[in-house]
Amino acid sequence: MALEDGGSKWKNVALLVIDMQKDFISGPVKVKGGETIVPNVIKAVQIARKCGIHVVWVVREIDPLGRDVELFRRQFYDKTKVASKGSVGAELVDGLIIEENDYKLVKTRFTAFLNTHLHSYLHANGITDWVINGVQTPNCIRQTVFDAVSLDYKHVSVITDATAAATPDVHTANIFDMKNIGVVTPTLEEWCQSTEKFIS
Amino acid sequence: MALEDGGSKWKNVALLVIDMQKDFISGPVKVKGGETIVPNVIKAVQIARKCGIHVVWVVREIDPLGRDVELFRRQFYDKTKVASKGSVGAELVDGLIIEENDYKLVKTRFTAFLNTHLHSYLHANGITDWVINGVQTPNCIRQTVFDAVSLDYKHVSVITDATAAATPDVHTANIFDMKNIGVVTPTLEEWCQSTEKFIS
Repeated sequence: MALEDGGSKWKNVALLVIDMQKDFISGPVKVKGGETIVPNVIKAVQIARKCGIHVVWVVREIDPLGRDVELFRRQFYDKTKVASKGSVGAELVDGLIIEENDYKLVKTRFTAFLNTHLHSYLHANGITDWVINGVQTPNCIRQTVFDAVSLDYKHVSVITDATAAATPDVHTANIFDMKNIGVVTPTLEEWCQSTEKFIS
Repeated sequence: MALEDGGSKWKNVALLVIDMQKDFISGPVKVKGGETIVPNVIKAVQIARKCGIHVVWVVREIDPLGRDVELFRRQFYDKTKVASKGSVGAELVDGLIIEENDYKLVKTRFTAFLNTHLHSYLHANGITDWVINGVQTPNCIRQTVFDAVSLDYKHVSVITDATAAATPDVHTANIFDMKNIGVVTPTLEEWCQSTEKFIS
């Protein structure tokens, strides 16, 4: 595995994996379409590791008393206790594991940039480009992507078949909008092809 | 204990406890003056609990690889590994315990407001006033206090003998500056007196 070359080529790139937690993928409030992308998210992470692309895990871990949930969604949280900090539902789905050199960041809002140190972290570590996958397309994925454009990241890509929404229509409509502002929207296979020459 | 009255009176108030971790208080890079305030910080937390004042613990838990430390302090971190996430040094000092209704927040910079959801959290939970203690006065305490003023909190108090710096002179000079901008700077005893009537 030509990690040397890969590491050099991809040192400014991060793979962001968003909210791939049990409650959101297979729990009672799961995102329909979430389960089908799990194999592709696993594969995207594997490819990233092979290339030396830095993997950043972004998750929600909500205060058990709901005090850090958005005010207008607090009632919903009180009923569901979704992704409650320390609960099984807040864990990553089976097959996804945070490794030693990865980085984990907890967010409390849709976009991973609001009230977190994500931008500071990426900027200080030389990340100018990133690729995103996870759930769900119209909320956390899209809001994070739009913020990234506003924050002057050079390249932002969304892997279309490693992201998901409640319905295919919602997913497609949001991918369409992101593509329209200049975001690159490859399938996993297309993204793989772009990394292939750096993996042996 | 008249928690009902206290809870009502103090429901808009939080006690912020800053960086009271082993590495900063008793470790090799400790803040001189930190150890002497531990009993007062413990007492302040006890009083807060009796009054129904919400206790918010703010700590640093630095990425073991140092990737979320300020760039200009990263070299320092590489040598000291201070407050490394998961290490004993990152734990609170003995005598301070996070209880179930408290809230813990991890910051990566001096001020507890930069790149965190502290302001969102306090705002959404009706906190307009707060009292701060911990270490150290010129850095995390002062920067958090100045930001609080800018962010339009109504009342901000610094407990002068439950905060500490490397030297008494530095501590005093910083308390002086904060007092000059309108921050209330009681001793623990003075702060206790203001809460006394709500505790029985």
